[in-house]
Amino acid sequence: MTATAELSARELDRAFGALADPTRRAILARLSAGDAGVLDVAAPFPVSQPAITKHLRVLEEAGLISRHRRARQRMCRLEPQRLRQLSDWVGSYREFWEESFGRLDELLEELQGPDAAASGPRGTRPRRKQASTREGEGT
Amino acid sequence: MTATAELSARELDRAFGALADPTRRAILARLSAGDAGVLDVAAPFPVSQPAITKHLRVLEEAGLISRHRRARQRMCRLEPQRLRQLSDWVGSYREFWEESFGRLDELLEELQGPDAAASGPRGTRPRRKQASTREGEGT
Repeated sequence: MTATAELSARELDRAFGALADPTRRAILARLSAGDAGVLDVAAPFPVSQPAITKHLRVLEEAGLISRHRRARQRMCRLEPQRLRQLSDWVGSYREFWEESFGRLDELLEELQGPDAAASGPRGTRPRRKQASTREGEGT
Repeated sequence: MTATAELSARELDRAFGALADPTRRAILARLSAGDAGVLDVAAPFPVSQPAITKHLRVLEEAGLISRHRRARQRMCRLEPQRLRQLSDWVGSYREFWEESFGRLDELLEELQGPDAAASGPRGTRPRRKQASTREGEGT
């Protein structure tokens, strides 16, 4: 098991590499509010326009954004499908984190014993969410 | 909206940076089959042991693996919780890729018209999976 790998190794390298920078992640967050001109994208950041231009190129080569023209303005757009592909890749490890949650649950149940499980509101162990629950979904 | 952000910016930098390398991704895949000694981890790769040691350190500093000793052997273990956190981060953009799928569906329905929708097996448009389906899950 490695990955669903719709993405090539090179595409994964570029996409993960692009996400490994706080300014580039902030640019994605900005574009999640809607398409924006290059100058507007740069405005919130205390870095030079050439530095922003380079960040945008890295994001574009990673397939995370695209660029187009609207009238005379150069616009940037979030390309969420690449993020979906990365989500699939990371999600291919889902069984492992669910398994490790399961082992933790079993261990805690053993430690607490059968009485503790019935103690109701006094129980301090937060009930783990359903494994299928998408934490962080839509937030 | 940016992220569920249980992880700090520095942790995200390190984790995504660690994933931006094919050898490190292959090491994670290897460890998903079970804990392995450092020498066993290195065996499949045509790179030097020092290079593997460096990759392991990057993965460990990113929180993606941990190291422990078993008898006299240094062992590596996959730490899937960090991958779960990255999945949450990427998943915070889920609404955007689902929305863009939705727009594509609407556009295709407009282009095909109401008759095309009832044409059954002759329809060439693959029916999009349910938005909640986890593509690539557990593979």
